[in-house]
Amino acid sequence: MTAIPDSAGAPGFNDVLAAAARIAPHARVTPVLRSHSLDAIAGCELYFKCETLQRIGAFKFRGAANAVFGLDDATAARGVVTQSSGNHGAAIALACRLRGIPAHVVAPENTPQIKLSAIRDFGAQLVSCAPTIAARDASCARVLAQTGGELVHPYNDARVIAGQGTAALELLHEAGRLDVVITPVSGGGLLSGTSIAAHGIDPSIEVWGAEPEQAADAHASLERGERVTDMVPDTVCDGLRAQLGTLTFPILRAHCAGIGLASEAEIIRAMRLIWERLKIVVEPSAAVPLAVVLRDPSRFAGRRVGIVLSGGNVDLDALPALFALAR
Amino acid sequence: MTAIPDSAGAPGFNDVLAAAARIAPHARVTPVLRSHSLDAIAGCELYFKCETLQRIGAFKFRGAANAVFGLDDATAARGVVTQSSGNHGAAIALACRLRGIPAHVVAPENTPQIKLSAIRDFGAQLVSCAPTIAARDASCARVLAQTGGELVHPYNDARVIAGQGTAALELLHEAGRLDVVITPVSGGGLLSGTSIAAHGIDPSIEVWGAEPEQAADAHASLERGERVTDMVPDTVCDGLRAQLGTLTFPILRAHCAGIGLASEAEIIRAMRLIWERLKIVVEPSAAVPLAVVLRDPSRFAGRRVGIVLSGGNVDLDALPALFALAR
Repeated sequence: MTAIPDSAGAPGFNDVLAAAARIAPHARVTPVLRSHSLDAIAGCELYFKCETLQRIGAFKFRGAANAVFGLDDATAARGVVTQSSGNHGAAIALACRLRGIPAHVVAPENTPQIKLSAIRDFGAQLVSCAPTIAARDASCARVLAQTGGELVHPYNDARVIAGQGTAALELLHEAGRLDVVITPVSGGGLLSGTSIAAHGIDPSIEVWGAEPEQAADAHASLERGERVTDMVPDTVCDGLRAQLGTLTFPILRAHCAGIGLASEAEIIRAMRLIWERLKIVVEPSAAVPLAVVLRDPSRFAGRRVGIVLSGGNVDLDALPALFALAR
Repeated sequence: MTAIPDSAGAPGFNDVLAAAARIAPHARVTPVLRSHSLDAIAGCELYFKCETLQRIGAFKFRGAANAVFGLDDATAARGVVTQSSGNHGAAIALACRLRGIPAHVVAPENTPQIKLSAIRDFGAQLVSCAPTIAARDASCARVLAQTGGELVHPYNDARVIAGQGTAALELLHEAGRLDVVITPVSGGGLLSGTSIAAHGIDPSIEVWGAEPEQAADAHASLERGERVTDMVPDTVCDGLRAQLGTLTFPILRAHCAGIGLASEAEIIRAMRLIWERLKIVVEPSAAVPLAVVLRDPSRFAGRRVGIVLSGGNVDLDALPALFALAR
């Protein structure tokens, strides 16, 4: 394992420690759950860090809170701008409400109403745009110019990465020594922060990403040694459709043992297992690490494996369709 | 509120404290979860004690562990007998395995295979009987005679009641002062233990039971001042079909502010809310207290209300049918 890279803009272990102190008054210390029956099925010792129980139902609140509460007062007063209609958008909205500053969330006009109302309920200003990347970027730029606000990207931001790393800090604090830590990977913010936190504590920990086969850009990027940005994701894991960022890719290259893959059916079967055995509602994205372990148990046999259950925001009306994928 | 009754066989506050110490090496200290959005919906401050995350997925492990680990060695060596194919059966099976003693679980022959295999997986001996109360009691008596073992009833047992009370101890320890505590009521073991624990700490706490309208024998019993034993339950809450016991009824008469009722649809809507907002898998029985609060919010307005989420053992394949009840 290499040391933490100090390449342009990447956060270090101290940034994760500072984030932990900064968000402590606002974020929850989530429980670490264990299950004897899941251990028996997997053939290893599993430690599940339940970020489903984090505020807004996902780890994203950590990074958002670290970014928002780290702003100086003058910058903060102009507000924060972001471009995620998912968990990061809700996290920014809540963090800004807690700090008492404006939040502007740019969201494509085809975003489901349920997501928009969650963000609106936290008091954020919604800015609708056409459902293209160009339109989204243009809207963001316009809002930034109008408000003088601060852009907080969902993952390609050192403050966000450092904040996401605090979940692994807590996991290692509670579980003690771990041989392996696995998180889902999408844009790479969680996995980057986890890598920096885990290797800051113990450089011998194997840090793995977990990704759907049908959205495997991180896997392809690490294999080829360059960011792959032309893949079209086709997965039920709606939290895992982003691509690695320019900031997260080099961190993962330096830190990650690899990216494990799982099929859609394997992911939904793992999600059901978590619901049944841990009694925790997880979204499909959060089940990918367990699916990866169950696909290739020999890789993890007998080891102490930490898993970050990233979030629990799932539409219960969609369950029958999801469960059908696992049959 | 009256003092803790010392009528025949009822446990007291010291028994709950002793149970907490006895089961501490074996049971989990489950988290207390909060939700701003549920507070806003209910108009009060809700503190959810997550016994879904207890071992075997339900509070029942507390009472079973207290009974099993309280046996003297000679008695323990002859084993434990019980007559529940549900969570109590699994709890007895696990507690006996942990102590290294035999467990005999009498279960009607029409018990679903999934429940039987859960009990068998914990190493208990299953004794099949015809699906009548007479056959069950006869089987229990025969096993007790053959083995010289100890009967541990699911709720009409002071050791079990004291054990169940430890959840409320932890809840009050973590939440601080509460105005109200609500638990589901079936045979009354959880509600009795909760009453004794809560009033041992603060006699001014209002302790409420929560019961399905379609299995309202506890409500009827407290109204009439005598145990009602001729009602036929017809509810999806498979954990709430028992009747108050001779031991639990007088405890509830002495301690309970009342029994709140909820319809099947209200219960399932509350269950969905808990899944969505707390990200915890709860079985329908566990959602009855929240359903009771939401049916009559004025009764609890602005108060600090503790709720015991009793268990999370739900058949995921049955979800579409359950959700249909709430429409």
